[in-house]
Amino acid sequence: MPQEHSETGKRNVAFTAWTTGDIHGIGPEIILKSFPETLGTAARPVAVGSAESLRSCNTILELGVETAVFESLDELEQSPPPEGVLPIVSVAEPSGPVLPGVVSAEAGRIAMKAVETAGELCLGGRVRAMVTAPIHKEAIAMAGYRNTGHTDYLSKLCGGIEPTMFFYDTPSRLAVALATIHVPLREVPELVRSMDLRRRIERLLESLRVDFGIAEPRLAVLGLNPHASDGGVMGDEEREVIEPCIRQLPAVGAVEGPFPADGFFGAERYRDFDAVLAMYHDQGLLPFKVLAFETGVNVTLGLPIVRTSPDHGTGFDIAGRGCASHASFSQAAQLAETIADNRARASERQG
Amino acid sequence: MPQEHSETGKRNVAFTAWTTGDIHGIGPEIILKSFPETLGTAARPVAVGSAESLRSCNTILELGVETAVFESLDELEQSPPPEGVLPIVSVAEPSGPVLPGVVSAEAGRIAMKAVETAGELCLGGRVRAMVTAPIHKEAIAMAGYRNTGHTDYLSKLCGGIEPTMFFYDTPSRLAVALATIHVPLREVPELVRSMDLRRRIERLLESLRVDFGIAEPRLAVLGLNPHASDGGVMGDEEREVIEPCIRQLPAVGAVEGPFPADGFFGAERYRDFDAVLAMYHDQGLLPFKVLAFETGVNVTLGLPIVRTSPDHGTGFDIAGRGCASHASFSQAAQLAETIADNRARASERQG
Repeated sequence: MPQEHSETGKRNVAFTAWTTGDIHGIGPEIILKSFPETLGTAARPVAVGSAESLRSCNTILELGVETAVFESLDELEQSPPPEGVLPIVSVAEPSGPVLPGVVSAEAGRIAMKAVETAGELCLGGRVRAMVTAPIHKEAIAMAGYRNTGHTDYLSKLCGGIEPTMFFYDTPSRLAVALATIHVPLREVPELVRSMDLRRRIERLLESLRVDFGIAEPRLAVLGLNPHASDGGVMGDEEREVIEPCIRQLPAVGAVEGPFPADGFFGAERYRDFDAVLAMYHDQGLLPFKVLAFETGVNVTLGLPIVRTSPDHGTGFDIAGRGCASHASFSQAAQLAETIADNRARASERQG
Repeated sequence: MPQEHSETGKRNVAFTAWTTGDIHGIGPEIILKSFPETLGTAARPVAVGSAESLRSCNTILELGVETAVFESLDELEQSPPPEGVLPIVSVAEPSGPVLPGVVSAEAGRIAMKAVETAGELCLGGRVRAMVTAPIHKEAIAMAGYRNTGHTDYLSKLCGGIEPTMFFYDTPSRLAVALATIHVPLREVPELVRSMDLRRRIERLLESLRVDFGIAEPRLAVLGLNPHASDGGVMGDEEREVIEPCIRQLPAVGAVEGPFPADGFFGAERYRDFDAVLAMYHDQGLLPFKVLAFETGVNVTLGLPIVRTSPDHGTGFDIAGRGCASHASFSQAAQLAETIADNRARASERQG
């Protein structure tokens, strides 16, 4: 997984928005490095955010990417540049020079303006998908935003739908979804009890079918407790919540578990499944970050828009030096195209 | 780590006990396969448990290991066999044939009898260390034991000292200690708050100094919450418990943290430390089992006796077939010798 197809189907919408992220981080660099890899493919990226940050990065790091700046997507669509030239829709520009590694309110404001623009273009069906370079929580907070993450913002933009955080790595074929995310560990067991786990699993299966083109997805569900409680010896969430939920699912056989998390990953059982549902943040991301070195991708599943991002932060410590790896951003960009294609295909089938 | 030395020092006690574990599992096989690797080294293993299980495994799998059976360690010491012959102290034997893969009360009873004998020989200073082949919790319970693990039993044997579960892998140089072990996840945050974390860390540092011969051990402590709480945004155990504890430790600089667990392992930060203290079972064992494939070793630290074991179970599904890997048992045996040597050296230094 995901299923890829050589023919890309008819595309009514041409462009995919790549947001520049915090311009004091490695966002502009990884965008410029990823763009040449799209040449010869059906992908048509448009950078959304600060044109100045891309121009400055391009010059200083001598990346040699040709760019063309537009005021809006309308303007771009009216006179698109030839292939090989990266179009940029400028939505906000810094008042002074770009300062790699500096946390600033202005960079935070520009980052969020780019996300807002791309999100609205996505939701309005004007672009196919959005791929977001990393933003900096502190800079966003300094800019006056209360929601400091992409996921929160996009969830609100989409009318409050709660998305599923999903991590995917092409080389290791590892796909991990999280049942709970950024909450204190002490709240996790109660959340697992109170959430609608069945609905969450069904929505995840639907995303695997539609977004990843897997007709009969196989999902592994991890236990919450050590050894998945060893039959109730260490905790009872498996027996009382997770096992009954799996048994009640209509798609018998497609969803298995609860598995003891450590042995599951140690024995590489994830290779037998299309995705793994972890009960909490570190349970999913500990093995993912170990196994998916540099190539892991973050996907926001369950929203009407397609959004992927690299699985790393702003890289303020290495910004401006030219040494940032664009592997994860490039993988995120490819996955966004695949998901957008799969969704278009599914919607055609439905008529 | 651990520091190894070519000279092994004067040895007053010659033998190291290798317990046969559940004889219906892979214990006898991995013992017989590991024994030839000790030839030419200072290690003098003695198998403790069922001689019949070793004889039968040796014959059926055609392993060609010469053995000599004794009724007791005394008898063995009076007339030790030549090098190349594995001595066996028979403490209990099955009433019928060995049945690979079968959970049975008799196998459970034999397994525990071997552990008890080896434990007492260790505690009495009659053997240097014990290396334990896996036992089966259900078989032990069927045999009428209430404590179904090695660690529980040995802790009691040593007067109730609470040991530290420690996992070590030579190839990846990864060493992980657990602050909490086999408890429901919902109890972990309160346990971390109520335990004497400082004393636990100090005892771990002492084990690293004495058992592993590291004069100035560097220890990384993981946070409890996702992102180590991101400054209190997701949980407060870092700010209220872990950070103050680390600050109060006299050995400034040697102990660092709390680190966000996923990023710590993803960026291979563990390479900068001699050991990592995880707050709970899966937080330590998820990355350990992924990184330490087949070669990980379990060490019971903090007891007056030296005990190591392979980091896997009884392997009932592959018992009797000859395909079991002895890599972990062999590593466990080598580490037991190293720890016993280091303890002897430390005790000589103290006079």
